[in-house]
Amino acid sequence: MKDLSKRIALYPGTFDPITNGHLDIAERAIQIFDHLIIAVAVNPAKQTLFSEQERIKLIEKAVEGLGSFEVTSFSGLTASFAELKGVRAIIRGLRMISDFEYEFQMALMNRKLKPDADTVFLMPSEKYTYLSSSTIKDIARHQGQIDCFVPKAVAEALREKFGGKK
Amino acid sequence: MKDLSKRIALYPGTFDPITNGHLDIAERAIQIFDHLIIAVAVNPAKQTLFSEQERIKLIEKAVEGLGSFEVTSFSGLTASFAELKGVRAIIRGLRMISDFEYEFQMALMNRKLKPDADTVFLMPSEKYTYLSSSTIKDIARHQGQIDCFVPKAVAEALREKFGGKK
Amino acid sequence: MKDLSKRIALYPGTFDPITNGHLDIAERAIQIFDHLIIAVAVNPAKQTLFSEQERIKLIEKAVEGLGSFEVTSFSGLTASFAELKGVRAIIRGLRMISDFEYEFQMALMNRKLKPDADTVFLMPSEKYTYLSSSTIKDIARHQGQIDCFVPKAVAEALREKFGGKK
Amino acid sequence: MKDLSKRIALYPGTFDPITNGHLDIAERAIQIFDHLIIAVAVNPAKQTLFSEQERIKLIEKAVEGLGSFEVTSFSGLTASFAELKGVRAIIRGLRMISDFEYEFQMALMNRKLKPDADTVFLMPSEKYTYLSSSTIKDIARHQGQIDCFVPKAVAEALREKFGGKK
Amino acid sequence: MKDLSKRIALYPGTFDPITNGHLDIAERAIQIFDHLIIAVAVNPAKQTLFSEQERIKLIEKAVEGLGSFEVTSFSGLTASFAELKGVRAIIRGLRMISDFEYEFQMALMNRKLKPDADTVFLMPSEKYTYLSSSTIKDIARHQGQIDCFVPKAVAEALREKFGGKK
Amino acid sequence: MKDLSKRIALYPGTFDPITNGHLDIAERAIQIFDHLIIAVAVNPAKQTLFSEQERIKLIEKAVEGLGSFEVTSFSGLTASFAELKGVRAIIRGLRMISDFEYEFQMALMNRKLKPDADTVFLMPSEKYTYLSSSTIKDIARHQGQIDCFVPKAVAEALREKFGGKK
Repeated sequence: MKDLSKRIALYPGTFDPITNGHLDIAERAIQIFDHLIIAVAVNPAKQTLFSEQERIKLIEKAVEGLGSFEVTSFSGLTASFAELKGVRAIIRGLRMISDFEYEFQMALMNRKLKPDADTVFLMPSEKYTYLSSSTIKDIARHQGQIDCFVPKAVAEALREKFGGKK
Repeated sequence: MKDLSKRIALYPGTFDPITNGHLDIAERAIQIFDHLIIAVAVNPAKQTLFSEQERIKLIEKAVEGLGSFEVTSFSGLTASFAELKGVRAIIRGLRMISDFEYEFQMALMNRKLKPDADTVFLMPSEKYTYLSSSTIKDIARHQGQIDCFVPKAVAEALREKFGGKK
Repeated sequence: MKDLSKRIALYPGTFDPITNGHLDIAERAIQIFDHLIIAVAVNPAKQTLFSEQERIKLIEKAVEGLGSFEVTSFSGLTASFAELKGVRAIIRGLRMISDFEYEFQMALMNRKLKPDADTVFLMPSEKYTYLSSSTIKDIARHQGQIDCFVPKAVAEALREKFGGKK
Repeated sequence: MKDLSKRIALYPGTFDPITNGHLDIAERAIQIFDHLIIAVAVNPAKQTLFSEQERIKLIEKAVEGLGSFEVTSFSGLTASFAELKGVRAIIRGLRMISDFEYEFQMALMNRKLKPDADTVFLMPSEKYTYLSSSTIKDIARHQGQIDCFVPKAVAEALREKFGGKK
Repeated sequence: MKDLSKRIALYPGTFDPITNGHLDIAERAIQIFDHLIIAVAVNPAKQTLFSEQERIKLIEKAVEGLGSFEVTSFSGLTASFAELKGVRAIIRGLRMISDFEYEFQMALMNRKLKPDADTVFLMPSEKYTYLSSSTIKDIARHQGQIDCFVPKAVAEALREKFGGKK
Repeated sequence: MKDLSKRIALYPGTFDPITNGHLDIAERAIQIFDHLIIAVAVNPAKQTLFSEQERIKLIEKAVEGLGSFEVTSFSGLTASFAELKGVRAIIRGLRMISDFEYEFQMALMNRKLKPDADTVFLMPSEKYTYLSSSTIKDIARHQGQIDCFVPKAVAEALREKFGGKK
């Protein structure tokens, strides 16, 4: 009998909102794992533009029809949520050096807390190197064009928030 | 029917010789994949301390009994060898920033050449951050203690080459 | 007829306040371009020590007599302001690795938004590597000596704010 | 007569709270200097979990019996406090690249302000690479296990603040 | 009368051979300057795949019809050649952090040697982040597809050297 | 009785040749330690411009009269030489990120081999950031001006090797 925990991976993040860069990582992960849990990290101390429910819905629309994805949310430690879900692999995207150090620190800490879960780093397409949720929000706030950076539903949701033109 | 190519991963490297850091990465990879091909990259332009056959044998001894490993060698492009073996995931260890940039350049290039294979980065235990085959060889050359850095068979092989004391 | 847009460059920044490091970059830029627009970026979401008008005046005093400078302010996206001003080159100083990644992300994003404007990076004198507006303000707040780090008018303005001794 | 200022070093930090990584640096410093002043930097603009007095007490408990340590606090510029205490060496730990640039900027600035004091960088054990006061607080906040990351008194103080189980 | 030295820039490099990444930088430079001197650095101590004359010809073919380019070669210090040519701006592409430090060291040294010439950094399109002359040569050596990485004449020249298929 | 091993530090390096940047580090070290051993690392596998004896002599001339320095050479592992000399602190200069990773790897390895010796990092003046023995040699080889980068005796020795003008 095969170990099913190997078939599932967890992709945690703030996703405020999901961008094409996040989507690129999710699609790469589903090439390697049978099932991917995309989990919105809920942190009451951090203010977000989109609510927990909005972020989940925007991800659900973005991954619809793309494969075996499950979209959910969690609060608390990523390592504990990974253990709860019985996954071994935590997916993280690495775009830049500054990601690298923060992500490594997180990955080493998660490994100390729950040695069974390990972080797997994937690299997005180089065309998403410049993308981050915060720059997207900044552009949308100033009515800049965002359609090529985020899924369609996210672009619409950002325009609703900030009143930008299509 | 499940896609078997998802179950296999390729871990390429020079492995001159394999260290405990490489072994740590291989053991992490086998937690996520069902089968791991450890492949010695043969590059006639680069001089190595151990021959292709020696390097394969030292890896075979190191992974004996640890899981479903296959040890082999290849010359030419990693992306082509990945395609030949029908694997989707190429495993690489990331220890440091300087690894990061070289590895990303390689990964992006491999992805351009063969879009079906993608690089998956794993992080060794922090206790192997300082380890590299070249520093190990340097220590062995000066008769320093290497037993805690490499598998037993490698330590012996290095002492045979350099005449160090146990 | 020559393309005049090549002769003008835009140097955007928060400049809260302008330091000798910023001035060094502006003086290097005017060696390469005929005219430099130094533009205070106004972001209502960010609190600054000096008001928009104060920042403009401190820059004006600092560049007085040094060449063909225009000092102004803008809100919104840098790329849009560059387009409005008809400039092709956006000047940014690079002091350190951490500048590098943030600046590259910004530059790539600006390029996506307005492909006609491109970012040109200049390197300040190595003696300004340690300088940043925030460390200057920190030193001034604790009555430390700041005269060798900022233009004269800025040193006086900081002393007025924090009551430091000359 | 020997210059006694060479025998004393200053280790400044926020220490909110002290971790095993800080302790590791302090113990390395006392191998090189005769006496170490561990100084809690008090910055009214920064909110801390532990008060100035709590932070001092937690450090005192942690270094008790380990050597010639003095625990104190200061506000204002580190360079000025170093001058006041008559020390030449300011100790800082370097774990990662991102530490490196911030620390270098600080060190260069301190050197400009007070050329007599110079920064000495020590490297903690690689097992503390992932440790930072803020990640420790984050884990404690979510009732994660923190006992192997901080001195005993700190673990207890964090449990008192956040109500975590032992 | 306008200062003509501002209109010309120097783009030095080994160009063994020129890639689409180099070409991207050259095309960005010609948007800012009126005339660009692309100069093959000749260093007898470094072995190159293509001779000085071959490298010049491959660049000439690549930039043909793209604007006001001059292709030449030089030996010795870049700063001295910049002075000889009467240029103020030395163009360099920055792709990655590892470029950054080497390039900054070179730029600071050039500035010390000849303060009149200053280095201007441009950023290639993110799609060329992974490109370098040495990886191109490595792929060509193993008969990999190189047509999308280099100008047409370079691809042919590489196939002639290594016998790869089109 | 005081522990004398704390008073001595070892500053190892290739010093081919010593530069003003190395000298800056040595002068900073002697502010903190009572005695500094500057040790030329002799590695038969690496080709150097100056012989072991020449490198020692150039250092001796450079530090003459500056304080309690001892100039010597060693082959083999730095950690072993530190043990032999009974020193606890190994001095290394950190100029840049790329230094950082290599130096940390070395320092961690030395610490594993000989836990009693620890590496102490000092930061040179920012005006020496760009300096390295290899760029100095490159400039001298092309008859560039080197007098402000190296001690007087080194400038003369380089001119003797390469025939540069004063």
